[in-house]
Amino acid sequence: MVAVTIAVDMMGGDGEAASLETLTRGVAIAARAQPAARFLLHGAAAELEAALAAEKDLAGRAEIRDAPGVVSMDDKPGEILRNSAGTSMAAALDSVAAGAARAAVSCGNTGALMALSVLKLKRLDGVIRPAIAVLWPSVTPGKQSVVLDVGADVRLEPRNLCQFAAMGASFAQIGLGVSYPRVGLLNIGSEHHKGKSQLQDASAMISEAAIGQDFDYVGFIEANEIPMDAVDVVVTDGFTGNVALKAAEGTARLIKTWMKASFQSSPLARAGGLLAAGALREMSSNLDPGKGNGGVFLGLSGLVVKSHGSVDAKGFAAAVGLAAQVAEDQLIERLAESLQMDRVA
Amino acid sequence: MVAVTIAVDMMGGDGEAASLETLTRGVAIAARAQPAARFLLHGAAAELEAALAAEKDLAGRAEIRDAPGVVSMDDKPGEILRNSAGTSMAAALDSVAAGAARAAVSCGNTGALMALSVLKLKRLDGVIRPAIAVLWPSVTPGKQSVVLDVGADVRLEPRNLCQFAAMGASFAQIGLGVSYPRVGLLNIGSEHHKGKSQLQDASAMISEAAIGQDFDYVGFIEANEIPMDAVDVVVTDGFTGNVALKAAEGTARLIKTWMKASFQSSPLARAGGLLAAGALREMSSNLDPGKGNGGVFLGLSGLVVKSHGSVDAKGFAAAVGLAAQVAEDQLIERLAESLQMDRVA
Repeated sequence: MVAVTIAVDMMGGDGEAASLETLTRGVAIAARAQPAARFLLHGAAAELEAALAAEKDLAGRAEIRDAPGVVSMDDKPGEILRNSAGTSMAAALDSVAAGAARAAVSCGNTGALMALSVLKLKRLDGVIRPAIAVLWPSVTPGKQSVVLDVGADVRLEPRNLCQFAAMGASFAQIGLGVSYPRVGLLNIGSEHHKGKSQLQDASAMISEAAIGQDFDYVGFIEANEIPMDAVDVVVTDGFTGNVALKAAEGTARLIKTWMKASFQSSPLARAGGLLAAGALREMSSNLDPGKGNGGVFLGLSGLVVKSHGSVDAKGFAAAVGLAAQVAEDQLIERLAESLQMDRVA
Repeated sequence: MVAVTIAVDMMGGDGEAASLETLTRGVAIAARAQPAARFLLHGAAAELEAALAAEKDLAGRAEIRDAPGVVSMDDKPGEILRNSAGTSMAAALDSVAAGAARAAVSCGNTGALMALSVLKLKRLDGVIRPAIAVLWPSVTPGKQSVVLDVGADVRLEPRNLCQFAAMGASFAQIGLGVSYPRVGLLNIGSEHHKGKSQLQDASAMISEAAIGQDFDYVGFIEANEIPMDAVDVVVTDGFTGNVALKAAEGTARLIKTWMKASFQSSPLARAGGLLAAGALREMSSNLDPGKGNGGVFLGLSGLVVKSHGSVDAKGFAAAVGLAAQVAEDQLIERLAESLQMDRVA
């Protein structure tokens, strides 16, 4: 039974992004799945009250924290740091920093959320750069792999990648229950001479760091192998990881569009589509690594989960559920311990 | 009527890659689609003769050129340059260099094929780095976009990206018939401050270069937008482009696996799958931007098309067909002219 309190930024999206009603519905879905969890909802109080009234699963389990300011998707991180007071995003992070909640969930501007998270929650001792980790779906039923960084830091630095390997391995152990994770470094060929020199340096560093640690470094892997259950952790820089994630997202959307068109292409196909609809819906909901659950910020002293900007209620529920589960598993506390041990060793 | 001669490397793959029989079947499929095209098949003569005997569509239209050496998938480009004599890959390129064929097609080692192509065919005047361009499928029926570079050069240099924009625009005009192509630069956000400084420099350069040219530079786009018909040309460095392509390939394979499983999940779903099988097969054959047709080398004085290492007969036929079509359209000659005009301008 997951009995944690989750701080939710209810106004993270803007423009074409998820509405406050959608997010409230998402929290309600998460609440049904986690009957002992509680929620602090940050946003404009009047709108939140109206949305909450429609969700009886949240009765008595959600408190409203008035924070009517909205961080725009276009704001630069620097501007946001200066102007964050009163925004729903900053307030949700403050709730975690103050100990009122165990994790924050937001579908807002990623750069802003990371900058504010570093400001308000601080890095764990020894962490150079925090990373954003996502769980990527796999061809093996029930399996997922951790991919990081998918967008926190665009620089390609061997020592950062080496730390991502350790953090990703801890996440796979704690979050996915893989006792001895296989770790791969994303490159454009598995041969050791391929790719960029920084990747070759990083590979040597991770190889050395893996000695005596509880993960297995398998070397380079290519992006097509990410869903093939080749490794449990895929290490990459935030630029490359973000491109891989978005390319996968675009492909999933392309295929959904084609599938719809295929099932309209003839009476037989239409009948087939109707018969198979349940199975296809199930599949479709697992399609997208970016929207499926959310990105977990690793390397901070508090837990933050970034949900997709144009998420639907079910996807937001998955992000909230992931935050609750990972908080219950004490990911941050155990990650801090494991990083501490690395430093002492 | 496409009446060109295509040089084919029939032994480009190795290990788990496409067999000589598969490639021969692919050439035969292409031959049926292009009844005036002719083929020079490079490889071990005895094996090729046996494979050819089974393909009556190739009778009288394919000549065998004995070149029994195989370039391995693991060979480094440098080693290959020294040891390429007698390989089917080198022989196919020699046929183009000697004017016996208008294009070469290979499914071999990409790095080796590019290194040998530069050696044997030379760069076009003014070209700094050749690029590999692929046609990426789109949600808009019948449309595709050009994505380059997907693996020729891992460096991220603004002047290369600027030249890729011009070459990609020419390819979209000549190969796809788009008179005024929209060109985008791949980044991890569409806001101008996002991503890497080299991308911001490249964006400024392309923006300036587009003035008075016959393409429209639309700025940054994200990888999820590639199949969304947002642009006709996506410019990126070879590392990032390769990761995007492979991530799309992996996602397509993941979804195919899931679709198969979905259609086995219940008797109703199975019946649905049978009814919809034709539509799904059609869709599935268009799924994969990497396997669908092949990568076109741009910036050399001869035409080379790289097919996927583990291609099937239909995919290889698509690559051979693309080579024939693009050769007939005089892509290289017109690209050379357009680059020449840029230099004079």
